Amino acid sequence: MASDPQIKNSNVDVLIIGAGPAGVIAADWLARFTKYGVKTRVVDKRSHKVFTGQADGLNPRSIEMFQSFNIANKIVSEANPMNEVCFWAPNESHGGIERGRRIPDTIPGISRYVQSVLHQGRIERHILDDMNEKSNGTMKIERGVLPETLEVNEELCQDDNAYPVKVGIRQLSEEESRPKLGSKNGEVESGLYKSNLVKDEDDDVEFKPDVPVGDREIINAKYVIGADGAHSWVRRQLGFKMQGEGSDFVWGVVDGVPITNFPDIRCRAAIHSNAGSMMIIPREGSLVRLYIQLNLQVDEGGHVDRSLITPKMLMDQAKAVFHPYSIEIPDIMWYTGYQVGQRLTSEYAKNDRVFIAGDACHTHSPKAGQGMNASMADTYNLCWKIGHVLAGHAPRSILKTYESERRPFAEHLIMNDAQLAKLFSGKPLSSAELNELGVDMKDFENILERGISFFLGTSIEYFNSTATANGRDGRLSSKQELAKNIPVGQRFPSHQVVSQFDGRHYHLVDTMFADGQFTIVLFAGNMDKQVNRQRLQTIAQRLDSDDGVVSKYTPKDRQRDGVIDVKTVHCGGRTNIEVHEFPQPTIYPPGTYNKLYVDDVSYHAGHGEAYKNYDISKEDGAVVVVRPDHFVGLVTSLDGAGMDDVDKYFSGLLKTVPAEQRNSAKDIKVIPQPKV
Amino acid sequence: MASDPQIKNSNVDVLIIGAGPAGVIAADWLARFTKYGVKTRVVDKRSHKVFTGQADGLNPRSIEMFQSFNIANKIVSEANPMNEVCFWAPNESHGGIERGRRIPDTIPGISRYVQSVLHQGRIERHILDDMNEKSNGTMKIERGVLPETLEVNEELCQDDNAYPVKVGIRQLSEEESRPKLGSKNGEVESGLYKSNLVKDEDDDVEFKPDVPVGDREIINAKYVIGADGAHSWVRRQLGFKMQGEGSDFVWGVVDGVPITNFPDIRCRAAIHSNAGSMMIIPREGSLVRLYIQLNLQVDEGGHVDRSLITPKMLMDQAKAVFHPYSIEIPDIMWYTGYQVGQRLTSEYAKNDRVFIAGDACHTHSPKAGQGMNASMADTYNLCWKIGHVLAGHAPRSILKTYESERRPFAEHLIMNDAQLAKLFSGKPLSSAELNELGVDMKDFENILERGISFFLGTSIEYFNSTATANGRDGRLSSKQELAKNIPVGQRFPSHQVVSQFDGRHYHLVDTMFADGQFTIVLFAGNMDKQVNRQRLQTIAQRLDSDDGVVSKYTPKDRQRDGVIDVKTVHCGGRTNIEVHEFPQPTIYPPGTYNKLYVDDVSYHAGHGEAYKNYDISKEDGAVVVVRPDHFVGLVTSLDGAGMDDVDKYFSGLLKTVPAEQRNSAKDIKVIPQPKV
Repeated sequence: MASDPQIKNSNVDVLIIGAGPAGVIAADWLARFTKYGVKTRVVDKRSHKVFTGQADGLNPRSIEMFQSFNIANKIVSEANPMNEVCFWAPNESHGGIERGRRIPDTIPGISRYVQSVLHQGRIERHILDDMNEKSNGTMKIERGVLPETLEVNEELCQDDNAYPVKVGIRQLSEEESRPKLGSKNGEVESGLYKSNLVKDEDDDVEFKPDVPVGDREIINAKYVIGADGAHSWVRRQLGFKMQGEGSDFVWGVVDGVPITNFPDIRCRAAIHSNAGSMMIIPREGSLVRLYIQLNLQVDEGGHVDRSLITPKMLMDQAKAVFHPYSIEIPDIMWYTGYQVGQRLTSEYAKNDRVFIAGDACHTHSPKAGQGMNASMADTYNLCWKIGHVLAGHAPRSILKTYESERRPFAEHLIMNDAQLAKLFSGKPLSSAELNELGVDMKDFENILERGISFFLGTSIEYFNSTATANGRDGRLSSKQELAKNIPVGQRFPSHQVVSQFDGRHYHLVDTMFADGQFTIVLFAGNMDKQVNRQRLQTIAQRLDSDDGVVSKYTPKDRQRDGVIDVKTVHCGGRTNIEVHEFPQPTIYPPGTYNKLYVDDVSYHAGHGEAYKNYDISKEDGAVVVVRPDHFVGLVTSLDGAGMDDVDKYFSGLLKTVPAEQRNSAKDIKVIPQPKV
Repeated sequence: MASDPQIKNSNVDVLIIGAGPAGVIAADWLARFTKYGVKTRVVDKRSHKVFTGQADGLNPRSIEMFQSFNIANKIVSEANPMNEVCFWAPNESHGGIERGRRIPDTIPGISRYVQSVLHQGRIERHILDDMNEKSNGTMKIERGVLPETLEVNEELCQDDNAYPVKVGIRQLSEEESRPKLGSKNGEVESGLYKSNLVKDEDDDVEFKPDVPVGDREIINAKYVIGADGAHSWVRRQLGFKMQGEGSDFVWGVVDGVPITNFPDIRCRAAIHSNAGSMMIIPREGSLVRLYIQLNLQVDEGGHVDRSLITPKMLMDQAKAVFHPYSIEIPDIMWYTGYQVGQRLTSEYAKNDRVFIAGDACHTHSPKAGQGMNASMADTYNLCWKIGHVLAGHAPRSILKTYESERRPFAEHLIMNDAQLAKLFSGKPLSSAELNELGVDMKDFENILERGISFFLGTSIEYFNSTATANGRDGRLSSKQELAKNIPVGQRFPSHQVVSQFDGRHYHLVDTMFADGQFTIVLFAGNMDKQVNRQRLQTIAQRLDSDDGVVSKYTPKDRQRDGVIDVKTVHCGGRTNIEVHEFPQPTIYPPGTYNKLYVDDVSYHAGHGEAYKNYDISKEDGAVVVVRPDHFVGLVTSLDGAGMDDVDKYFSGLLKTVPAEQRNSAKDIKVIPQPKV
């Protein structure tokens, strides 16, 4: 096919297949590398975005991720935060449901964001707007594009300049790229045609060309990301297998604005009733989603008869569960069904050139709201690595950490989900009737409560690797004791600090929006003491030297803070020191106001107590290396040994720039001290 | 001219002349009345928005106003908050400047917003986007449109259906609508051509037609708003005089990114030096604005020779002031000059049919950052009144309150500004040299500090009128003692409450975005007590009766909460009462979740202590009527006498709907109580 002169042939650095949550986050990350010449294309076989239904639970970690892209506020302002989980169970006397415990949906204090719900289409819209802006308008989603062939030339895989992956694509006609399985049931929008009740083969049929030939193109890519969903075509081309099992549990989903006297209709209500289980998810506006357990038989092939699932059948079941409360949904906006099942791909990557991500790697039940979160976190982990490799900053070996970091997470997720799904689908029993098939409400609530902590996404820990110095293998060990509450391998927690320049309060992570750079945070200690000022001078000299990490890994044609940024957070009195008393240029870069902060009281938002919250000594201080994805790479000491650790950390991760090509501190014009 | 068959003739409810800050707020308010059939047009003589320079200080009250339009977050996220004011004065030994006190720029606790700076063009953009959305895309700014004639037919002024104001307009060519006085000085953008150093006549010359005839139109309007700036053409047509005086003080303004070792370059620094005065305003990004006192003579006609003001001259002066610190602005983005002067129009309105607003009414120095704030607050006050008159809800008499509320404010503003300007332009003296020409630094700081409180905009109080029951005239007196911290006539202060439905925390004003409606807030007291539940039942019955204020002033074709909305904030335990225990439909309207709140602890944001902060007794409660512009109209008691006061308040303000046309509570379907 490649030799057919009729067929267009093109090169691209990264080809992303699929523009769902995993695909758009990949695209938005890589858009940030456009400035280093990285070229990315995104194709999706569907001609239109789907506007109803769809996964839409956002955990706090996902919103933190949006924050790192500086788009969290837009999304939060449209989303519905879920505040409270209410547990309901049968009342032993009247048999209808009654409320048990109430707990907060997000553990207070764990993040500045809470579990929230917003339609996937809106979330993707904000991410794509950001992609457009960050790529200077050069990136867009190519819709109605079907991938047809995929080949990896293994011989080329070791060559940084080669394009070892060949993908044949075809532009579909408008007609072809519209789903064929039908998305309507009468007047009601149905999501059944793309649920997991559909088999892979059926999904392929959906896009079977009606016309013999369309516009074909061969794309030669350095890297390919298959973010093409649970029925992933890329995964099947690579021959990766989904492993795990489905279950007999079948659930239905209904979206609409209910009229009800059920008092917790705006809470996440987990209902066990004698008629079955249900979960209520309050959505934006007055919209509510009901997850309804169904009494449906699964056939031998493991799939239910989809035609049995109708809006009326779902509402009849919901009404039975709600007794003694009433519920009507005058206009059902969307409905679907799914089978609970937990499966994981056998491999994540081929030759570290083709990667799969998101639902293509792992499937689980939607009720814990993890689908979108887990998918986005996959490519959020992968794509800054690909970006740095393509920009020439990092060796390809860094890409190995994608699977080593994301697979253990997926295994953990699937285990938690299976446990939760089983509990959720079990029949409630009165305290007198507990048996091995039944579920004790207390168990259920406890496990759900523990599960919530995992599902919030803020405690995810990546294992020791070149990117994460939390191992005990002797290569490089963090001095975790210097900052006990900044766990290496977990996301950098954020606390409030104050700008040295204007006294404005900031969340520390808001000073380091994700743009590809690593950040070295110098917790410089108490500047009121001369000895600590002297220590910072010594560190600054090393960072500003030609062999310091900033110079060593930053080529001349990059901004000096483009690869490794240095922030300083001291804890003296803000007004006890003038900015020009800090060393230039790295610690106090004239004309730049986002490098120097203090852990001091603010005028309008109290004291962030960052040192205390991070558990950092005000005398010893600490050095923290934060990765581009805001995960903690290293915690070490504010001295020569610590600086050696920082050298060692980056030497395993980045490519040394030849001495004469370095972006040197010597080239930066510093400002003379005022003659005060 | 009206009889010329060539000339287009059209009718419109409101014609807004001028699309600066006052004009766009007027437009955004009236856009909210599009749903009641109100038609508004906005014309501006300039063909383009100006993108550099311009006033840009936002006080907390203006941001609260944006919050009421639900656009504050967008603006705040782009703006630079000013955190700190630093005072600098000559050091007696070296003669250069040294820092004195530091104070917060916004008094902590006074508002949830702080003084901020953002370019006027961005602010207007967000307001116009909102106008577009709220008018369903029907409103846009007509640019390059010059008003040429204005006539008021006084005989028609008493007729609600008449169009008594005739405005002749002409569409300018692209060429004509570009300013002629030149906006460049070499490569540097200059704002001199539109500063107050330009005389009215020169401003007219600017738009003198080059071609004899353009496209003319006669617009017959019910109301006209002249928001056309300091040189207001509308004001001059009406023959209103600007009264007050200019001063000898001439100041220059420079915008750019400075390279400096001056430590407070990101603070609002008020500098008195031996070389003259200066004020630093830190702007968005790394941009800074310098206000520089100039040593220029004012000629007899009261105007300086503008050609003397050049970028070099301004920077030379700035450098002299800054000594011993250095400053360079490699690229000056914009500069201008102005003369300090405080003037006020003789009248605000003609026949309550033509109004002037903003700079057309009052001019003062820009340094206190009041220009945009005062202008926007004018039309924010005026246009909900015009909207309700045109929608048929209110009699025209309500329009009288525009001048009665806004003139005293303007007088107060001008007095404060004159005092501040004089202080600011005075020469600093060493403590040994104080005399009547000089300024004591302590005086200066104290007056500035007091001035700040006024300039924040949150303490503005409107006097007693039909819209504001804070008089002692016996017609209707508020029971201010029931809610001491909700001063009648001032803006409704906001505290955190919690939704009864989902436990989510809200600022109370975030539950009542400005859409034209009045809001009755029932502080219903402690629901844990049966007697308080019973009291609320009684109030609800009265509010739901056919003679209650909601029915009485709301026609059938309006939403029941479209004219008067009722919110309830109780202070029992949230989990001690179920939502369906509140009376339907006004207090607990099924399917609506934004009416019922509680002053209780939240999961993630502590306890708002609203009752305590408002100083409302948890037993007695209170009733507060909030106007559409979030000013407090009435505070009264939660009983029959209080409800009588509420009746009386609205009877002076709104038009009674005939009984058979009322939107009655009886027509609302309520939900049966659950059989628990």
